[in-house]
Amino acid sequence: MNCELISVGTEILLGDILNTNAQYLAKELAALGIGVLRQTTVGDNEGRLLDALDSAFGRCDTVILTGGLGPTPDDLTKETCAEYFGKKLLLDKESLEKIEAYFSARSIVPMPESNKKQALLPEDSLKLPNDNGTAPGCVMEKDGKRIIILPGPPKEMVPMFRDYVKPYLKKFTHSVILSHSIRTFGIGESYMSEQVADLLEGENPTLAPYAKSGEALLRITASAADEKEAEEKIGPVAEEIKRRLGNYIYGIDTPNIETAVFELLKSKGLTVAFAESCTGGLCAKRLTDIPGASDVIHCGVVSYSDEIKHRVLGVKKETLEQFTAVSGETAQEMARGVRLLSGADFGVSLTGYAGPGNEEEVGTIFIAVDGEKKTRLQKLVTCHRGENCRDYNRHVAASNAFNLLRLVISEND
Amino acid sequence: MNCELISVGTEILLGDILNTNAQYLAKELAALGIGVLRQTTVGDNEGRLLDALDSAFGRCDTVILTGGLGPTPDDLTKETCAEYFGKKLLLDKESLEKIEAYFSARSIVPMPESNKKQALLPEDSLKLPNDNGTAPGCVMEKDGKRIIILPGPPKEMVPMFRDYVKPYLKKFTHSVILSHSIRTFGIGESYMSEQVADLLEGENPTLAPYAKSGEALLRITASAADEKEAEEKIGPVAEEIKRRLGNYIYGIDTPNIETAVFELLKSKGLTVAFAESCTGGLCAKRLTDIPGASDVIHCGVVSYSDEIKHRVLGVKKETLEQFTAVSGETAQEMARGVRLLSGADFGVSLTGYAGPGNEEEVGTIFIAVDGEKKTRLQKLVTCHRGENCRDYNRHVAASNAFNLLRLVISEND
Repeated sequence: MNCELISVGTEILLGDILNTNAQYLAKELAALGIGVLRQTTVGDNEGRLLDALDSAFGRCDTVILTGGLGPTPDDLTKETCAEYFGKKLLLDKESLEKIEAYFSARSIVPMPESNKKQALLPEDSLKLPNDNGTAPGCVMEKDGKRIIILPGPPKEMVPMFRDYVKPYLKKFTHSVILSHSIRTFGIGESYMSEQVADLLEGENPTLAPYAKSGEALLRITASAADEKEAEEKIGPVAEEIKRRLGNYIYGIDTPNIETAVFELLKSKGLTVAFAESCTGGLCAKRLTDIPGASDVIHCGVVSYSDEIKHRVLGVKKETLEQFTAVSGETAQEMARGVRLLSGADFGVSLTGYAGPGNEEEVGTIFIAVDGEKKTRLQKLVTCHRGENCRDYNRHVAASNAFNLLRLVISEND
Repeated sequence: MNCELISVGTEILLGDILNTNAQYLAKELAALGIGVLRQTTVGDNEGRLLDALDSAFGRCDTVILTGGLGPTPDDLTKETCAEYFGKKLLLDKESLEKIEAYFSARSIVPMPESNKKQALLPEDSLKLPNDNGTAPGCVMEKDGKRIIILPGPPKEMVPMFRDYVKPYLKKFTHSVILSHSIRTFGIGESYMSEQVADLLEGENPTLAPYAKSGEALLRITASAADEKEAEEKIGPVAEEIKRRLGNYIYGIDTPNIETAVFELLKSKGLTVAFAESCTGGLCAKRLTDIPGASDVIHCGVVSYSDEIKHRVLGVKKETLEQFTAVSGETAQEMARGVRLLSGADFGVSLTGYAGPGNEEEVGTIFIAVDGEKKTRLQKLVTCHRGENCRDYNRHVAASNAFNLLRLVISEND
């Protein structure tokens, strides 16, 4: 089964809403082993939609459409698809009752006349109930072609796909596509790719490098009859990659570096406290994004001014005067200070110039990790300057702080 | 000028990344009065990309592509577009030097061989410099057709479009579409819409309500020959909306509530300090996202454990025992404590249950603002529970804290 996605909605073409449906469906279909050849967005326009359907069916046998099932006249996805397959639209009593119930439950009586059209379904189509809204979806088939129509609002579309479309599609797939992401920190995409250049040639599993906000990852994907067989294909290649990239790898399928650090701390029963200047709470925020973070972090201090660095964290006045707030010396005293203040096993500090600006020092950030046994210092120079560098510099600095902590802990073994 | 967008990237087809570029470009082009007929996503595949280019040019004269400018062999957007227009690729010395400088600045010497290909540009194309990465973009023209190639990473694509493509495209448009966003806090979309129901009927300017992560905003859009005329159309309607929505409005075109608070604090020479439990540094992070935040925030404390609440913020042991950590009493002592610790004009605290989980208390968060003159307390109940509620609850809690501070400060007048 080959598939294409068509998102219908002028509001997407105008950029008013972000098309999250396409990503959700693409991910779900990939996991089912169904390839998506193309994603298309067209406006609420009959001619353009017919055109898009026609060209899609020139490449694939199944088209999944989202959007355009509303009650207003410009909602015409169902009507246009029925016309494309030459099918009549018939009133579905059950759907109509459900829609009427939906409105009376919200004490909107009588139901707006316009909503009646949402109860129309193409003849001999498979109805997809909408448990979270008024418009049902449907599956239409003709000459081996298949159209699946889903509502636009994600809170209606997602459950409808999960509960009704996924079980339906499973009947047509005889293979699975399985992917694992090998995530690294501290090397660039190019260097990483060169280390595994020969493996990038592989057919099954395939290996694809990606770079993302200061990190590089390898996505290893196998297709097979079942999950077990896919894992067997992936296993040896993954092992070889681990052997070559070693401790640059912080996790496999780990969503991000902070989660890797969270799991490491938790598994060892360790805690961390942050003293943040330029990142202003970003490290603490990212670690506490994770449910259960309270097991590993009890305290963080945002010390933006010298006075707070001195008064709350105990950074010596002389240190601030002699070396300034942005220095390895200050970073180390901040890390030590927050460790002692909090009683955590590790204190992690960041102080630097996040920008924006084009001054020489923008992107220079000192990171210190202080443990009872050892202290580690890193001078990070991101070389990102200019007006949009701030978010990047802060994100990358925080990521490097997590990575430095990861290295210190693993060395402690 | 008619336009289509083609996003190139197997990672988008697989659902690995969300296509935010398409929304950004669609919005920007709409503002330039350039219609987008279709958005297409294809994988990193020469044949499929050629096919997509061909069908796009069957409908429009300008195609904007994003993605596939990386150093690896599967990045082939530039190569494929050059082939489509029958143009050679030539090495651009200036770009090569820039890329080499980029790497040597990061002391990655020699530059990975594979990055050289990023310095190739189609013959007689207009180069679009990349001020935030290695791969330049370009504009190619042939027989009245136009291809604009941009990098995939938003932090490279957005500034490149804004600084080089937008000025280029302005030459082709003869009208402007101007929008302003009137941002409110504390009212829902439907209530807000009811207050301006009659204005929603307007033709030029048009008024559109949106709801987004706990906020409601009105987008007011006018089309005119030039900016001045558009502003004149918008002016009176905007004034009427301000009159009706009053202090619910925290800003016009203000990107977010923290920026409104930052500007308010700065204009009055006031400072704030945060004591965060459930939000774990999110408030401090959001305020320090803003360049110049050091003028208004010197200190923040993430107090995840009772012990830190007591030892660092001075919350009384009895308060924690009698009322627990999640209570108005604790919130008020946290806010007071961080104000006194930091010497800021206002202390803002949050303590609550962010989730995930389905327990009754998930989504209940106490927010306190403590100033020398007055203390304000808010009990927030988001009603968001279940597995995915954590991010939402934390975001909305932080936003409410900013808004409560905004109200306290404006009342102080």
